[in-house]
Amino acid sequence: MAKFLTNREENYSQWYNDLVIKADMAEYSAVRGCMVIKPYGYAIWEKVQSELDKMFKATGHVNAYFPLFIPKSFFSREADHVKGFAKECAVVTHYRLKNDETGKGIVVDPTAKLEEELVVRPTSETIIWNSYKNWIQSYRDLPILINQWANVVRWEMRTRLFLRTSEFLWQEGHTAHATSEEAIEETEKMIGVYADFAENFMAIPVVKGVKTVNERFAGALDTYTIEALMQDGKALQAGTSHFLGQNFAKAFDVQFTDKSGKLDYVWATSWGVSTRLIGALIMAHSDNNGLVLPPKLAPTQVVIIPIFKTEEQLDSISKEANRIKADLEAMGISVKYDDRDNNTPGFKFADYELKGVPVRLAIGPRDLKNGTIEVARRDTLTKETIQMSAITEHVKSLLREIQKNIFNKALRFREENTRYVDRWDQFVDTLDNEGGFIYAHWDGTTETEEKIKELTKSTIRCIPLNSKDEEGKCILTGKPSARRVLFARAY
Amino acid sequence: MAKFLTNREENYSQWYNDLVIKADMAEYSAVRGCMVIKPYGYAIWEKVQSELDKMFKATGHVNAYFPLFIPKSFFSREADHVKGFAKECAVVTHYRLKNDETGKGIVVDPTAKLEEELVVRPTSETIIWNSYKNWIQSYRDLPILINQWANVVRWEMRTRLFLRTSEFLWQEGHTAHATSEEAIEETEKMIGVYADFAENFMAIPVVKGVKTVNERFAGALDTYTIEALMQDGKALQAGTSHFLGQNFAKAFDVQFTDKSGKLDYVWATSWGVSTRLIGALIMAHSDNNGLVLPPKLAPTQVVIIPIFKTEEQLDSISKEANRIKADLEAMGISVKYDDRDNNTPGFKFADYELKGVPVRLAIGPRDLKNGTIEVARRDTLTKETIQMSAITEHVKSLLREIQKNIFNKALRFREENTRYVDRWDQFVDTLDNEGGFIYAHWDGTTETEEKIKELTKSTIRCIPLNSKDEEGKCILTGKPSARRVLFARAY
Repeated sequence: MAKFLTNREENYSQWYNDLVIKADMAEYSAVRGCMVIKPYGYAIWEKVQSELDKMFKATGHVNAYFPLFIPKSFFSREADHVKGFAKECAVVTHYRLKNDETGKGIVVDPTAKLEEELVVRPTSETIIWNSYKNWIQSYRDLPILINQWANVVRWEMRTRLFLRTSEFLWQEGHTAHATSEEAIEETEKMIGVYADFAENFMAIPVVKGVKTVNERFAGALDTYTIEALMQDGKALQAGTSHFLGQNFAKAFDVQFTDKSGKLDYVWATSWGVSTRLIGALIMAHSDNNGLVLPPKLAPTQVVIIPIFKTEEQLDSISKEANRIKADLEAMGISVKYDDRDNNTPGFKFADYELKGVPVRLAIGPRDLKNGTIEVARRDTLTKETIQMSAITEHVKSLLREIQKNIFNKALRFREENTRYVDRWDQFVDTLDNEGGFIYAHWDGTTETEEKIKELTKSTIRCIPLNSKDEEGKCILTGKPSARRVLFARAY
Repeated sequence: MAKFLTNREENYSQWYNDLVIKADMAEYSAVRGCMVIKPYGYAIWEKVQSELDKMFKATGHVNAYFPLFIPKSFFSREADHVKGFAKECAVVTHYRLKNDETGKGIVVDPTAKLEEELVVRPTSETIIWNSYKNWIQSYRDLPILINQWANVVRWEMRTRLFLRTSEFLWQEGHTAHATSEEAIEETEKMIGVYADFAENFMAIPVVKGVKTVNERFAGALDTYTIEALMQDGKALQAGTSHFLGQNFAKAFDVQFTDKSGKLDYVWATSWGVSTRLIGALIMAHSDNNGLVLPPKLAPTQVVIIPIFKTEEQLDSISKEANRIKADLEAMGISVKYDDRDNNTPGFKFADYELKGVPVRLAIGPRDLKNGTIEVARRDTLTKETIQMSAITEHVKSLLREIQKNIFNKALRFREENTRYVDRWDQFVDTLDNEGGFIYAHWDGTTETEEKIKELTKSTIRCIPLNSKDEEGKCILTGKPSARRVLFARAY
């Protein structure tokens, strides 16, 4: 199987596309820019959902569901929001089809035109704040801490599976607060949750920071982001959390009576991650043999493969394999025993490598005799022989080790590809020849930021939260700067 | 709170609407016919999803995700399907908005017209079978057992929260098989799963049966249904499972090579339940005090309310309450301890009655002294005093008993409202004055079925799977009939 993958070093982009298809994660559909998420890809998304959902609930959030459609006029209410989102989107104009009079299939019924067009949600701030208006009268109704799991549509011209598709799945949190401080605290808490999830489940180290004015979410006063580095040296924005101030409350006239009896507009946040995370997961860890999945998000953590020639051999091996499977499952580990007889062990080995199953156990007749088992790690592609009696404990600690190793490897890669650059020629040279994260000084103006983007295709990924004060000169203009910001070319 | 509900016996329909709103389950949105599912309603849907998903996976299914949009022409491919679904639906015709040149908000950009209109999925057979075409070559690729959790849109003219909305949430299973027998077996298995879920989780007894030709899903050879009886004597179709034969395989040219090397079209099923189930849940069990939820689907199974006057009393009660909460949670029971001091115990009692929390525990200073606790059941509205030391075991068995009692009550109601009718005048009289399920003879023709519907507004809910052969005469025409079918007025 793996031989069908383009070499990662030769053509990273083609390697990615090949991998998504060959590992049965997703494919394009008949609808332009929309993907089919196949069962294996969706199983990873289910893991992501399940873990994030627990984290959201542990931080006091509840789920709800708001309409797919948003009246067109809602977008005009918030001045910045309309610029950002009321552009490339799917517009519903009619509500009926009818038989074509010439008998050639069906056509849109022109008499069924909507009075006001509906936009398929690209994000739900407007429809949600229009609902919150009726839910909030007093400070006693606050905070509202709601999350929604949903599909959204942004009509993208250039699409890539998982990374940028016209329809994608995501979650969007929308919270309402009595004070600015509380809303900012929520914004920061949720970027913290995302960073925690990225590092501890996806095994991807991230830089937490705030976006520049230019890169903010349309309608936000501040956008927090987590930025990850992919293996080709490009950055990927993996999650964002927005402090929306009172912008949406004002746009939808949502006021509340505070403790002192005074009327004020409600403070808002929103935050989201999407199926794009699966693209990040693939690009951060995988290799020329296929996917490398962190055990905590792998749909199947362990696969057991019997090596046999006769039915009799298979029977004895199966007995042992099923016992091990049951023992591992009792420890909460997901196991597949693949005793199909229409594929060779070699084919199966390659297939599970392609699919990124973290641990592979192989049992043959000789193992049975010796009381041993062969254990292969997907992350390092190494094998060892283990006593059968110690296998469950071994696998348990091995999964922990693999999770840690994948993270450490990604961290090491990021460290090796993070540079502090002070001269323009070096900045350009680094971008062209090395890629990676670049910490450089910037004079703080949108003009310079856009000029740099135009000249180098690199953007300011964020102003890192933990960046130290350091006097310096802007990489482009030489004007004074108080701290370094994070530059990179990005997905 | 409860006093705001319309009396169920006076105006059942208004009682239902009141209850959905007052219990904070859902509300209408700014978009015609689309609802907002509020956190409490959504929490029930999450329980439904979680249990059904486990059952689907236990029967070998996996989840995937297919596009929201379907090219218009796909609907024309299957002749019956187009009649059923390509009518009242949301049609996307454009993919861009722009600023109005007169400066008055935004308008649809006429230059961004789609070559082919896209329909927001009312159901996904067509887009899914168009994908399956590429996935299936040989019998080795079969069966495909996929489910999808998704939103769908059917442009309804008359809507009711949960029961009939333009957008709703559902799951749709779409399976592909090598033989007709296997597909029929799957169709029957899944209606069995639905019946199991309805009876054992929702506590609603259902009649399993097949629909008449007239009431079949558009494109199906057979539609299996589960039919439930609501408290106002009307039937509600709670889930359907369709044997689609080779119709969609032929429409999308999906052929496979069987074991003998012969080409044949693939056999299909589809099956679904939706947020409508929440409407059924409300209507089957609730009363004039509010919701009555079966413990297995209640977001909060037990609420503990402290009765106190002083801070000191609250402190001692909280200590005990938190211990009980922890003990119950350790048993997997969901508990809320409501120690808010801005509402009276009486207000809280009424509120949790309205919300249908199955068990309410109240602890006051006297209880602390006596080592007792007051236990109230939502289903019977009865109270008893229990020794504090025995409370966890008591609550555990009480939840089981409540689950059983709610089902038995619904079953008794159905039995009391199921009638065998043989004369037309009695048939009409029963429908007009009693409602309920009516088993009557029918001559088997669509013509008679439609005539009965026209005359009485009752429909054949199904031909029950367990109905016995019994010679009789059609209730309307007097023509011979071999078995009784199930009639009712329905939602």
